[in-house]
Amino acid sequence: MASLKLPEVVPSPTQDSERLRNAFQGIGTDEKELILVLGHRNAQQRKEIRETYHQIYKESLVDSLQSELSGDFRNAIVLWTCDSSERDAKLARDALKAKRKGIKQLQILVEIACATSPNHLMAVRQTYCALYDCSLEEDIIASVSPPLTKILVGLVSSYRHDKVTVNSEVAKSEAEKLHEAIKNKQLEDDHVVWILCTRNFFQLRETFTCYKQLYNNTFEEDIKVCGKGDLASLLNVVVWCIDRPEKHFAKVIRDSIVGFGTDEDSLNRGIVTRAEIDLLKVRFEYANMFKTNLDDDVIGDTSGDYKEFLLTLLGKGPKGD
Amino acid sequence: MASLKLPEVVPSPTQDSERLRNAFQGIGTDEKELILVLGHRNAQQRKEIRETYHQIYKESLVDSLQSELSGDFRNAIVLWTCDSSERDAKLARDALKAKRKGIKQLQILVEIACATSPNHLMAVRQTYCALYDCSLEEDIIASVSPPLTKILVGLVSSYRHDKVTVNSEVAKSEAEKLHEAIKNKQLEDDHVVWILCTRNFFQLRETFTCYKQLYNNTFEEDIKVCGKGDLASLLNVVVWCIDRPEKHFAKVIRDSIVGFGTDEDSLNRGIVTRAEIDLLKVRFEYANMFKTNLDDDVIGDTSGDYKEFLLTLLGKGPKGD
Repeated sequence: MASLKLPEVVPSPTQDSERLRNAFQGIGTDEKELILVLGHRNAQQRKEIRETYHQIYKESLVDSLQSELSGDFRNAIVLWTCDSSERDAKLARDALKAKRKGIKQLQILVEIACATSPNHLMAVRQTYCALYDCSLEEDIIASVSPPLTKILVGLVSSYRHDKVTVNSEVAKSEAEKLHEAIKNKQLEDDHVVWILCTRNFFQLRETFTCYKQLYNNTFEEDIKVCGKGDLASLLNVVVWCIDRPEKHFAKVIRDSIVGFGTDEDSLNRGIVTRAEIDLLKVRFEYANMFKTNLDDDVIGDTSGDYKEFLLTLLGKGPKGD
Repeated sequence: MASLKLPEVVPSPTQDSERLRNAFQGIGTDEKELILVLGHRNAQQRKEIRETYHQIYKESLVDSLQSELSGDFRNAIVLWTCDSSERDAKLARDALKAKRKGIKQLQILVEIACATSPNHLMAVRQTYCALYDCSLEEDIIASVSPPLTKILVGLVSSYRHDKVTVNSEVAKSEAEKLHEAIKNKQLEDDHVVWILCTRNFFQLRETFTCYKQLYNNTFEEDIKVCGKGDLASLLNVVVWCIDRPEKHFAKVIRDSIVGFGTDEDSLNRGIVTRAEIDLLKVRFEYANMFKTNLDDDVIGDTSGDYKEFLLTLLGKGPKGD
């Protein structure tokens, strides 16, 4: 359920590269043209454009965007245009190097580990090592304090299988283990970490359903009651990202908009990283959770090319060609 | 330092496939010819032969070997011919499904995690999921008992960066942490697991060197004194596989030979899986540790085509063409 709209006939990567190059040249940059092209190409097409652009002009497209643009529009379109494993490796690095590393920052690691595919997560780890000469896990251990370290290292190290296979007995027995950990206020117990970090997403959703059937409360409700501060908040993000990522990202976007000013980094992340995955579901969940319209909220909080670009990713901007 | 010997002019994959096919046909199989071809091709060449053979004869080369051969020779040449990530996924699965899962079985997981490259380990995890609809970590948790589970899950989940970068201060501080764990007899401490499962191999070797300088004993000597049974034995394998894998594999081969009868599975593993990595070093270390010659020991304990094939991988068999 992606919101991205592609033209009926997609131009060749060479044609697109030439249009982008022309948009950069002359007095001022033609931002509308950048949106018309890049805002209407999927990941594979953008990859081909990056490669072709580099071949023709001996320059990186992302570098061109960086140097020709500025502000929130630049950040959003760069995030959209660069390779998704590089994008997520950089987001993870920024989160770990932030001065303050609260849940707002650390949840980015959970999103990468629990709301993307296992192969994507592997690619992010490889890219992280290549970019920073240091593994993602090493950076987590060096910069995050217990008890969050263990669960975060486990999550980013996971490689879950992705077939739709569910074992109801395992779900029941692991729901019981999770409940046991809640009762003992042992949220960092090895079994909790293993269950959340090794089971496939379908199995875990069954386990959460089973938990609710057995104990009336949902697992995340019980986590909150268990009240373990940051660990409880982080585990809540884990459950949402696994169970219903659209709910998590609706909240990320909402939090970025409400209050004084806009948190553009979070807004970009919520919209740009989900545009090809589940942004339509996020929009639906947003309306459901907050009784307000996501498109209207974006229009109210952004302006100019930045607004146009985000609306394009939401499937509401100018028609691409 | 590999022992494999390639012919000066390597035939095309089509020529090799035809030779192999001919060797299978007629009355009886021409095992000598199989050794002459497959025993003198590197991993990339064997991959191309597998693909070409399949294209021409619509049959898997590994399946042909399985059905045309028997006994130890078959097992060894199949291990050698199949894709290395599939080979290791199968070795890991067999180890975890063995009735008795002592160090002898579990050390196979350590070898895959600590004595191969990070990218190879990732490929093994992917293949494991594809073959068994279950992740390697899930199988470890289901079939290995604490306190071994935690370290094994950590090791197989690692993705270490592979640049030669070493930080001496980190080495010193982590040698101290390892020593602290030894003193407290807390070998399954989170810090021990994190150090052994996330640091790159060069850094860890520096840490082990530092340990010896600071505390006179080596880390593995102190592990033994700490005496935690299976966990201590497993950690010993971890340290050897990281620090000097040739030492570990020399011991694997020696153990497979001494005593009554030969443990062909271990002998195959020691020779076949290291032939393209460090078998010359293993041979040197073998002489050093056991004051006897590896080639002679193989000759003494094996016979026929099986012996010829192992000697070929040791660089001592018939010259390939």
